[in-house]
Amino acid sequence: MNERNKVTTEQHAREQALVDKVVASFETAEDPRLKQLTQALTRHLHAFLREVRLTEAEWDEAIRFLTAAGHITDGKRQEFILLSDVLGASMQTIAINNEAYANATEATVLGPFFVEGSPEIPLGGDMSFGAAGQPCWVEGTVTGTDGKPVPGARMEVWEADEDGFYDAQYDDDRTAARGHLFSDQDGTYRFWAITPTPYPIPHDGPVGALLAAVGRSPMRASHLHFDVRAEGKRTLITHIFVRGDELLDRDAVFGVKDSLIHDFVEHPAGTPAPDGRDLGDRSWSSVRFDIVLAPANTTGAGE
Amino acid sequence: MNERNKVTTEQHAREQALVDKVVASFETAEDPRLKQLTQALTRHLHAFLREVRLTEAEWDEAIRFLTAAGHITDGKRQEFILLSDVLGASMQTIAINNEAYANATEATVLGPFFVEGSPEIPLGGDMSFGAAGQPCWVEGTVTGTDGKPVPGARMEVWEADEDGFYDAQYDDDRTAARGHLFSDQDGTYRFWAITPTPYPIPHDGPVGALLAAVGRSPMRASHLHFDVRAEGKRTLITHIFVRGDELLDRDAVFGVKDSLIHDFVEHPAGTPAPDGRDLGDRSWSSVRFDIVLAPANTTGAGE
Repeated sequence: MNERNKVTTEQHAREQALVDKVVASFETAEDPRLKQLTQALTRHLHAFLREVRLTEAEWDEAIRFLTAAGHITDGKRQEFILLSDVLGASMQTIAINNEAYANATEATVLGPFFVEGSPEIPLGGDMSFGAAGQPCWVEGTVTGTDGKPVPGARMEVWEADEDGFYDAQYDDDRTAARGHLFSDQDGTYRFWAITPTPYPIPHDGPVGALLAAVGRSPMRASHLHFDVRAEGKRTLITHIFVRGDELLDRDAVFGVKDSLIHDFVEHPAGTPAPDGRDLGDRSWSSVRFDIVLAPANTTGAGE
Repeated sequence: MNERNKVTTEQHAREQALVDKVVASFETAEDPRLKQLTQALTRHLHAFLREVRLTEAEWDEAIRFLTAAGHITDGKRQEFILLSDVLGASMQTIAINNEAYANATEATVLGPFFVEGSPEIPLGGDMSFGAAGQPCWVEGTVTGTDGKPVPGARMEVWEADEDGFYDAQYDDDRTAARGHLFSDQDGTYRFWAITPTPYPIPHDGPVGALLAAVGRSPMRASHLHFDVRAEGKRTLITHIFVRGDELLDRDAVFGVKDSLIHDFVEHPAGTPAPDGRDLGDRSWSSVRFDIVLAPANTTGAGE
């Protein structure tokens, strides 16, 4: 509370009357959920405006910000998702909808770079498709919270290259560092990726300008994306992060959870690869990520 | 409160920890006002998400809505202003920044159709520039709250034609139903406009779809826009509304205030016009609007 928040009783009543009028205007909504959402949005939006005593110049700036976000958004750039991400709204929505369930793997943000229609790779295949980066062997199991293996789980994986770009950000239509595979009959999986490296979220637009204005970094902690789906299981959208990454505690989109930080083991050039692949004079890394899926239709704490 | 709002203590703590983390991320902002705005926005946004337990599908829909709003917005169409308008956020911002001051004329929304660079008209001139509609004689005085006339006040006036369109909505670049003039040495003013008629806000975009989904009308009560500026006075952005208009109590953007409703007097064809203009076989209307400007830099209740 500051000086600006002191309003007269008459002014307070005038402002509250407007809120009540707008809330009432949504009473005609036939869909009760839509009514709830629009009325709650109205209440919280007006509470924000009234608390900060938004000036007309600031309102103008907000309109300009949203307009610029709309105009930079296209099929490959999604400024509104970035905005939701940097305000923690994406992560909060995930938290609300993916309550911890027993020992199930935790979820995190989808991010703006997921693209439909990735190529399938075989177990042990390489999802990098030539993207620049150190080879990284990823392996683990997919099980239920009951400990039973989940065969045939569809695993979609995607990541940025070592220059910090997803293929969706390339100037051409190449597909790289993106693919999907299926867990084996015993629930195990393995594939070649590239070792995740830190990168900035796109920061040449209004969201980047906002971060700069408040002194926040646009950098994301290094990570590899997973989307894991299996019949009868809750869909898991998550990342794994690299233990030791200095950005873990200031990830631009608040995506890091302790349980998702994993050891990426460095192997010097010449160390034999798990699958006998000839990596020549290149070093490589490896990580183990055992995935535990909650039952479908669970939102609670489980057993 | 409903079933969905019952969360476990652990879940509540997890959600609150995320809010605290996002709020803390804005601590680095050097501008104290920007810090206040971003932190308050974070708190209110998360409070909304948590209260309604926003689903991931609803979050997707919100991103789609904002994206569509961004894409329909151009130099002549401003969907984000419409969104702010139909949520009452524009009117609330105006209420916050234009507290009642003595007997000063009340403010209302700017609306999305104001365009810079209107033509100047002389006192008694016609701002319709051929826009379709019944001729309307508008006259009154501009005074301060001290009762003294304000000579040379710059008055910008604009309105929709009788088909419900502003010139900004025409397919060509014609200027119509828009102009500016200056009050006379004695603070009086007079000009020809067209009688305001009801019209819908543009409703072929996402905001129109939202209004339809909740059963709200896109219609605005009939009005004529004013933007009045004078040295040493608070800028007044307002409308006058037509008494008897059935839309007065359900204006789509909540812009109506009782003090802004005026009598538009109908005059049958043949009635002599105040300035002797020959209107042939057309009927016409007239309205008196005495404008009272608050002193500059006032936000309070005044004397």
